[in-house]
Amino acid sequence: MDSPWDELTLAFSHTSMFPFFDIAHYLVSVMALRRQPGAVAVAWKNPVSSWFTAMLHCFGGGILSCILLAEPPLRFLANHTNVLLASSIWYITFFCPCDLVSHGYSYLPVQLLATGMKEVTRTWKIVGGVTHANSYYRDGWIIMIVIGWARGAGGAIITNLEQLLKGDWKPEGDEWLKMSYPSKVTLLGSVMFTFQHTKHLAVSKHNLMFFYTIFLVTTKITMMVTETSSMTLAPLEDVLSRMLFGWQQQFSLCRKKSETKASFNGTGSSTSKPIPEDVVENIKKKNTKKTE
Amino acid sequence: MDSPWDELTLAFSHTSMFPFFDIAHYLVSVMALRRQPGAVAVAWKNPVSSWFTAMLHCFGGGILSCILLAEPPLRFLANHTNVLLASSIWYITFFCPCDLVSHGYSYLPVQLLATGMKEVTRTWKIVGGVTHANSYYRDGWIIMIVIGWARGAGGAIITNLEQLLKGDWKPEGDEWLKMSYPSKVTLLGSVMFTFQHTKHLAVSKHNLMFFYTIFLVTTKITMMVTETSSMTLAPLEDVLSRMLFGWQQQFSLCRKKSETKASFNGTGSSTSKPIPEDVVENIKKKNTKKTE
Amino acid sequence: MDSPWDELTLAFSHTSMFPFFDIAHYLVSVMALRRQPGAVAVAWKNPVSSWFTAMLHCFGGGILSCILLAEPPLRFLANHTNVLLASSIWYITFFCPCDLVSHGYSYLPVQLLATGMKEVTRTWKIVGGVTHANSYYRDGWIIMIVIGWARGAGGAIITNLEQLLKGDWKPEGDEWLKMSYPSKVTLLGSVMFTFQHTKHLAVSKHNLMFFYTIFLVTTKITMMVTETSSMTLAPLEDVLSRMLFGWQQQFSLCRKKSETKASFNGTGSSTSKPIPEDVVENIKKKNTKKTE
Repeated sequence: MDSPWDELTLAFSHTSMFPFFDIAHYLVSVMALRRQPGAVAVAWKNPVSSWFTAMLHCFGGGILSCILLAEPPLRFLANHTNVLLASSIWYITFFCPCDLVSHGYSYLPVQLLATGMKEVTRTWKIVGGVTHANSYYRDGWIIMIVIGWARGAGGAIITNLEQLLKGDWKPEGDEWLKMSYPSKVTLLGSVMFTFQHTKHLAVSKHNLMFFYTIFLVTTKITMMVTETSSMTLAPLEDVLSRMLFGWQQQFSLCRKKSETKASFNGTGSSTSKPIPEDVVENIKKKNTKKTE
Repeated sequence: MDSPWDELTLAFSHTSMFPFFDIAHYLVSVMALRRQPGAVAVAWKNPVSSWFTAMLHCFGGGILSCILLAEPPLRFLANHTNVLLASSIWYITFFCPCDLVSHGYSYLPVQLLATGMKEVTRTWKIVGGVTHANSYYRDGWIIMIVIGWARGAGGAIITNLEQLLKGDWKPEGDEWLKMSYPSKVTLLGSVMFTFQHTKHLAVSKHNLMFFYTIFLVTTKITMMVTETSSMTLAPLEDVLSRMLFGWQQQFSLCRKKSETKASFNGTGSSTSKPIPEDVVENIKKKNTKKTE
Repeated sequence: MDSPWDELTLAFSHTSMFPFFDIAHYLVSVMALRRQPGAVAVAWKNPVSSWFTAMLHCFGGGILSCILLAEPPLRFLANHTNVLLASSIWYITFFCPCDLVSHGYSYLPVQLLATGMKEVTRTWKIVGGVTHANSYYRDGWIIMIVIGWARGAGGAIITNLEQLLKGDWKPEGDEWLKMSYPSKVTLLGSVMFTFQHTKHLAVSKHNLMFFYTIFLVTTKITMMVTETSSMTLAPLEDVLSRMLFGWQQQFSLCRKKSETKASFNGTGSSTSKPIPEDVVENIKKKNTKKTE
């Protein structure tokens, strides 16, 4: 069974993230922060706040999963090496004279390399999250999915919260209302790794890690080269939504019906609403209070 | 001592919430969500977000009490049956063709039944919360009250937070500033069950549960039938506030005094302020910073 | 080694905070709350909410450190004596007839005494936080600093959050963006006590506590007597920022360079921006999405 192929993927799945991939992850995260308007000015006016934000960008996923599992959100600070690494990257990114770093980073090949390596860390984070959650809840596969997702893509949520607190961010169109592409693909990965872990997916973990990472990296790279901001998961989503919410036809059908009924009732103005609720709505409105 | 009456209440206090009362609770919560403007549109645009909100509506109280006791907020996800139940109710509520569910729910008798059963679950939640908190802090009766309250009525707080994050909710007149009727009555119940648990209330638990549930259900039903949005606890509150803050008389008296003084001092414009502070206020203002 | 001096400082470091210093702390905190516009009106309209806010003002630091270490944020409620003390102080402050308390408090000597005693409790809190964090993470000195800081000055953050939730506070210029003087001095103390605890600072704990307390009290008193709202740590900060970010010269130099370049590129309008990024900015903008 240990064919050269298996050996390759196994070796790959044993790669340590520590020095280089982590560096890439921190670099990409901090550069993303640096590009926010006014970030550099803040760094000069108030380094502590900027450093704090940078740490949230680098370790956000871990912090979120800690909160969700009621572990100390500060735990990441106990890993001095990584904090030191992230801090120094934050330091050179913001305070390097004639900011060479960001100039260097503005070259596409460098970006491609860094982003690709960051995507590799995503896989490791998801696997780590799933395994960790499993150590808490033996068969809580929902929790495993959520934690894997939080580890992999939760940074965006944490940083959004922080911006909300700092008043930089007015919440509309946020992570809740429409998931970004990374969130979606991370959710997909988290589901796959969870099912692999609970033996519902008959594939060895290292193979899954290998293929998922390849998928992540290639899609990300292609997205960066061809300026498309969201590589499409549309077919998958389409199938899913058709499976789950497939009766749009009947729905829109009886919607038309109820609306004609509505217009007979003389409330024709309600045709703009996308849902047939509006007629019943008004009647129900006054009950709303009671039923919470 | 085991009179037929005791047996009845005892049997009642042993009723399992699981299939039917939980269903009623989920149904009422999800319907409350569905009535929020735009909820249905969101459910079609982004089911994941809508499902997430629905879970918060169904399990909010438990989540809040978990947070307050530093337990994993995700714990409720480990109970697969209930999550599945709530999810399927969310599903049929939002995606049932020609939304039969909400039409059926719009009939008053159905609503009365569901709401009554939901109120029963409230009692069970309060008792659960009090007992659970007591297992942490042997004699921490304040904590027991708070946790019982959070389990029973904390859902509103959680959902408010979530709406705040989603920007759907501008915070004024929120749960903090004036408690809704459910909050008040839950607080009352939490206090009673705590004192019963610490043996300061000489009544057997199952009797208290029985009578409190009867009280909850009847008031709720009457509130729904007669369209009064808040059944009155006014007498109780009145007595309490008279006991605690009973010197409104002297207060307003020396308020008048200080105000005449004020107007003598030529700051008569301050009469509009409800409190005699305003004169001293301005003098103190500049010290405010220092004293935090 | 136990010279009379050592004995004095040792005795000082063994002083119990409980009755008097805690009372002073609660008094100062509640008065700070009472001075917020509308606080008294809220206390009359909705005592529960006002009491809740007062508790946050009195125990905010402990709550924050509990959250950061994943301990029950409600723990402070288990200490009935202190809660009772704080509550009664809140009670007499807000509801005392002809509000004698706040009139009495408006005399400077009383304020000086109370504030001085409050500053003493700050030292005790920092030490407590550092020791407590050390019991979790044996050599996690970053965490020790953060927890000591949170215990000592975290109240402001908690109360800001609460005001944010109540909509009383629009977040700009908050604790994150520029630290208040207490935050800075608490951070300094937290660093010192951490290094003392990890034996990097060769001074006995009771001496450090003594001198740091003296420093806190004197600066605070002088700040209150001379109306200066922020006693200066400027020299220290100046040295630090010069050490860390010392190449402002070259920076502004190549900034000038890049800007002349920019103006050659015809984007001379960008000279107002404080940083040379803006040229590269626009080019990078479209990549921002991808790199999070």
